[in-house]
Amino acid sequence: MATLPLISDEEASAEVLAVFDDIRAVRGTDFINNFWRALAHDPALLAATWARLKDVMGPGELDPLVKEMLYIAVSVANGCEYYIHSHTAAARAKGMSEAQYGEVLSVIGMAMQTNGLVTAMQVPVDEVFEV
Amino acid sequence: MATLPLISDEEASAEVLAVFDDIRAVRGTDFINNFWRALAHDPALLAATWARLKDVMGPGELDPLVKEMLYIAVSVANGCEYYIHSHTAAARAKGMSEAQYGEVLSVIGMAMQTNGLVTAMQVPVDEVFEV
Amino acid sequence: MATLPLISDEEASAEVLAVFDDIRAVRGTDFINNFWRALAHDPALLAATWARLKDVMGPGELDPLVKEMLYIAVSVANGCEYYIHSHTAAARAKGMSEAQYGEVLSVIGMAMQTNGLVTAMQVPVDEVFEV
Amino acid sequence: MATLPLISDEEASAEVLAVFDDIRAVRGTDFINNFWRALAHDPALLAATWARLKDVMGPGELDPLVKEMLYIAVSVANGCEYYIHSHTAAARAKGMSEAQYGEVLSVIGMAMQTNGLVTAMQVPVDEVFEV
Amino acid sequence: MATLPLISDEEASAEVLAVFDDIRAVRGTDFINNFWRALAHDPALLAATWARLKDVMGPGELDPLVKEMLYIAVSVANGCEYYIHSHTAAARAKGMSEAQYGEVLSVIGMAMQTNGLVTAMQVPVDEVFEV
Amino acid sequence: MATLPLISDEEASAEVLAVFDDIRAVRGTDFINNFWRALAHDPALLAATWARLKDVMGPGELDPLVKEMLYIAVSVANGCEYYIHSHTAAARAKGMSEAQYGEVLSVIGMAMQTNGLVTAMQVPVDEVFEV
Repeated sequence: MATLPLISDEEASAEVLAVFDDIRAVRGTDFINNFWRALAHDPALLAATWARLKDVMGPGELDPLVKEMLYIAVSVANGCEYYIHSHTAAARAKGMSEAQYGEVLSVIGMAMQTNGLVTAMQVPVDEVFEV
Repeated sequence: MATLPLISDEEASAEVLAVFDDIRAVRGTDFINNFWRALAHDPALLAATWARLKDVMGPGELDPLVKEMLYIAVSVANGCEYYIHSHTAAARAKGMSEAQYGEVLSVIGMAMQTNGLVTAMQVPVDEVFEV
Repeated sequence: MATLPLISDEEASAEVLAVFDDIRAVRGTDFINNFWRALAHDPALLAATWARLKDVMGPGELDPLVKEMLYIAVSVANGCEYYIHSHTAAARAKGMSEAQYGEVLSVIGMAMQTNGLVTAMQVPVDEVFEV
Repeated sequence: MATLPLISDEEASAEVLAVFDDIRAVRGTDFINNFWRALAHDPALLAATWARLKDVMGPGELDPLVKEMLYIAVSVANGCEYYIHSHTAAARAKGMSEAQYGEVLSVIGMAMQTNGLVTAMQVPVDEVFEV
Repeated sequence: MATLPLISDEEASAEVLAVFDDIRAVRGTDFINNFWRALAHDPALLAATWARLKDVMGPGELDPLVKEMLYIAVSVANGCEYYIHSHTAAARAKGMSEAQYGEVLSVIGMAMQTNGLVTAMQVPVDEVFEV
Repeated sequence: MATLPLISDEEASAEVLAVFDDIRAVRGTDFINNFWRALAHDPALLAATWARLKDVMGPGELDPLVKEMLYIAVSVANGCEYYIHSHTAAARAKGMSEAQYGEVLSVIGMAMQTNGLVTAMQVPVDEVFEV
């Protein structure tokens, strides 16, 4: 249960509907996921977040699938159920194979483990790694 | 300062040296970074961690550079200074351009922000994202 | 499902009931929320936690509503579903408007994002910020 | 040591200097802190982050000092050294008294403790807290 | 809902069944918990994780019950619902009394609180604590 | 550098000195570590934190060494440098052998890894683990 009711198209203001329309156009689907319907309570926050997300996750130097995988990695380390589900689904929609997913999981598990070990031992950063 | 002294080659047991030798062979460098020199206090933990890391980070379905980027993403969300430095250096060594690095940063920033927003609002996962 | 059964008034010891009574008196409500009913399995932990919470969240130099907002901020960064819900409800009960809530969300999102960016880049603290 | 060199005014492009100038104008100081000098390697990320931060932390429904305190709270829970220092300094610059700071610390400590306890016991959210 | 279907014995490959059989033999029970059934999608990750876990959690210098408590502590700080439940159950199965559990909770709560306070104040580590 | 100056015995109020004296008496040492000297800026917070810590970490159902290990585990997962150092030192002072420390590290690493894997896969808790 969210701390805010999810805003349907019928309840949305013109400002919110304009953002919803852009989400639909960019993604090529009529579906608006719950994150945006919750965020719609604050139209300025909704508009700013969508504008930035559209820019960050759009075409660029990295393969869009790699961006989805990075999103999964951050969300797992933060324990964020919502974005683990949504970006795992998005990564699959962009072609992530189950073998690739297995490697994403393996790297995340390895990073979590060694993050814990190096933090526990408070190992100083090697000078060679510094810029 | 680490919680354990770093073990030099001179102080290393035969068991530890065998792992150090394999690290050198696999990476094609004589350099052994501090993480392994700290972990060397527990030869079994050293051997198991290296064996697994070699396997996970080696050739597979994902580009080795993508694995480095995923490692950075997890380490940032965990606030792990050591691995942020070492895997940012490793990613650059594997060809990450500064433009790509800027996008890695942008995706991490976006994921952190939206993880915070969706968690604050406790938005329920859309059914469509479930397997 | 909790790892401990929730203790009802009927099951509570005299020591636990005394704490429940004080919670009711301080808050001006008969309602005891689940956190205290779970903690009641360890009466000393229950008493110590309530005594401290009553003191910390009571009248002082900060507006009680600000204290609720700070509680929300910490709980979001920790991903703690229970306290996100309970302190968002408490903040609203103390007068938080939806516009104020939107700003709380915006600041949390901004802080999460910039925490991620600055950690990823391992930016050194400016001397001017040091005491 | 940052993963990126800090960009001085002399090294900055016109695009970056325009952002630096706006930071100076909004804050009424010539000082540009290290976060922006690191972020300047990616002018688009710099511009987007500053534009959003200026908006979020500017005048609104919440007292600017409260926004600084919320920033501290999130940064502590994330263990982000840089923002703990910079926003504690900013809060003091905006008038936070040492007595108020003591209460901020007390609430953060309390929230961390009870977040841990409620998570350990996996206490279900009371229905009354749901919207 | 998991991001991967849970693999039943009927669906399991010979490689996966061999790991399941070893789990059953080592634990002296026919029950295979969901973690392994999800991980079974990647037989190599399943085998490596189980081999390491069997070794780490098996007989050694620390009481097996202490290992379970440490697992609970890490899982609480990470907010990991699954492992909080499974290792609290395992600790009880290995003899953890409710009085001991109360102390585990108390130490976790204390550590969370003081971690927050010391991080907020950025207290430098005393030289005497360094190796 | 701390956000607050560390308070020496000479600068301490009578209220603060009384807490310092109790710390010295309970620990059987003249040494007061930096955490308490920072916390001394808020005498009420200092007194409440010490009173609770003394109670939690004192004699009880768990071996005092186990409590130190639990403190390390939480502090590692939170990335808290100060408490990793201080409680690793305290655990050694209470007799933790290097072999035991190796197992503490191994369990922490294992828990971090499997927390990441189970969170990434969003595995549902088995009914059998529920109370």
